[in-house]
Amino acid sequence: MISKNQIKYVHQLEQKKFRKAENLFIAEGHKVVGDLIAAGYRPTQLFATREWLSEHPYDATYIEVTNDELARLSLQQHPQQVLALFPIPDAGSSAALQGKELSILLDNVQDPGNLGTIIRIADWFGISTIYCSTGTVDAWNPKVVQATMGSIARVHIIYIDPIELFSQLPADYPIYGTFLDGENIYTQQLTPYGLIVMGNEGNGISDAVRARVSHKLLIPDFHQGDTADSLNVAIATAITCSEFRRRSL
Amino acid sequence: MISKNQIKYVHQLEQKKFRKAENLFIAEGHKVVGDLIAAGYRPTQLFATREWLSEHPYDATYIEVTNDELARLSLQQHPQQVLALFPIPDAGSSAALQGKELSILLDNVQDPGNLGTIIRIADWFGISTIYCSTGTVDAWNPKVVQATMGSIARVHIIYIDPIELFSQLPADYPIYGTFLDGENIYTQQLTPYGLIVMGNEGNGISDAVRARVSHKLLIPDFHQGDTADSLNVAIATAITCSEFRRRSL
Repeated sequence: MISKNQIKYVHQLEQKKFRKAENLFIAEGHKVVGDLIAAGYRPTQLFATREWLSEHPYDATYIEVTNDELARLSLQQHPQQVLALFPIPDAGSSAALQGKELSILLDNVQDPGNLGTIIRIADWFGISTIYCSTGTVDAWNPKVVQATMGSIARVHIIYIDPIELFSQLPADYPIYGTFLDGENIYTQQLTPYGLIVMGNEGNGISDAVRARVSHKLLIPDFHQGDTADSLNVAIATAITCSEFRRRSL
Repeated sequence: MISKNQIKYVHQLEQKKFRKAENLFIAEGHKVVGDLIAAGYRPTQLFATREWLSEHPYDATYIEVTNDELARLSLQQHPQQVLALFPIPDAGSSAALQGKELSILLDNVQDPGNLGTIIRIADWFGISTIYCSTGTVDAWNPKVVQATMGSIARVHIIYIDPIELFSQLPADYPIYGTFLDGENIYTQQLTPYGLIVMGNEGNGISDAVRARVSHKLLIPDFHQGDTADSLNVAIATAITCSEFRRRSL
C-alpha cells in the first residue's frame, strides 16, 4: 500500500530543485534500475510489483506495489514493474583529462532525449566522462535517465563551467569540435585522447568555447545541392566518437 | 477566421486512416513547410500568421490565422507561425536499386522519432531512397514529418514487403545488416552501393530478412566489461552510413 504523500514525493522529483534538495533521482524499469544496482548504486526506496520481485531476487528493503499503484507512481506512459529512487552521485573530479582519455564536453545541450542518447553513445564507445556546461539540461532529469537505457550507471557526468575546465588542462591538450568551417573529420589526424565538444541544438558551440577549440572538424554532407541541412547533436556525437575509436583499431 | 470543422479536419489527419483516406499529411513550421515547397510540394491548405506572411512571400492561396487560432490548429507544443496540408506523394518505384545507389531498408522501425531521424540522416548522407517494411511506422505521421526537420521533402519513402523488394534485386546485390555476430564494420570491405537494412527497436532484423542479408556487419563497442548495451537504431544507422560514405572519399 502506498500513500498519496509517497506518490507526491516521487512526482516532485521531476523538478530539478526537488532533486537537488533531496539529492535523489528517479529510475524506472528493470534495465535502468538493474544497471544502476549492478554498478553499485543503492536505492533509498524501491517500489516493485510481485512479478518483478519473483523474477529478480532483491535483498534490500522494498515496497511491493500493485500495477495500479505503480501506474500512479510512474512518470512513464507504460510503467515497467519497478521504480526506484537513487542518491545523485558526487560530481567527481576531472581526473580523466589527466589520464589521456577521450572525453566529451557538452556546451548547453538542451533536449533531455539528446543528452540521454549522448550518454548511451559515450557508454558504447568507452568514454567514461561527460563534462556538461552549467547551462546543459540536468542529467538526473527522469527523461534523461530513461533515455540512457541504463548507461547513466556507467558514465560519469560532471557539471562545470567550460572555461573553468579549460583552465585545468595543459596548454597543448587537444580540444575538438565540429563546425561548418572545420576540416573533414574523415581525413584529419585524430589523437587517441582529448576533449570532444558538442554544442547547443540551435546555436552550436558558443563563441567562448569555440575560441579554445584546437581542432575544428567538419562532418561533410554527401547530398546534392546546397539545402541547409543539419545533423542532430546526438547523431553528430555518434559519428564523431565512431571516427575517433575507429582510428584506435 | 477558422472554423471548428477546419480544426477538427486537421486534427483527424493525426490518424493514419484519415491521412490515407484524404491522401494528405500535416507539416508545421517554416523549415519543414519551406523545404517541402522548395522541393516542389504544393499545399492544399496553408495556414499562416501575419508575421510569417510578411517575412515569406507566398503567392498561392492561404488562410491568415492569429497566434491563438494557430495554437488550436497545431499539434505542436510550440506552434511555429505556419501549418500546411500537403498531398502524400506517389510511392514511386524501386529504381534506385537498379542505379547502383546506396539505399536503406527499415524492417519494422516503430518509433516516429527514430524514423524521422533516420530520414534526416539519409538526406545528410545523400541516400535518396528509404524502403520501409509495411510494419514500419507511417512516414507521414506528423511526429515523423517534424522529426525530419524538412528532410522528408528530399528523401523518397517506399513502403514495400522486404521479400517483394528482394525479389526485384539481382542475385548478387549486396545487402548489409548490423548484427551482434557480424564482422567489424570498420575493417570490412564495403561496396559503394547496396541496401543497408536496419531492424526493429526491440527485436532487430527479422529472421526472414536476415536470411537474405549477404554481409553481416557489427558496430563494435569499446567499453570495458560485458554490460549488455545497445545502440539506438537511428544512431546505428548514422554510424553505418558514415562508414559507407567515408570509403567513397
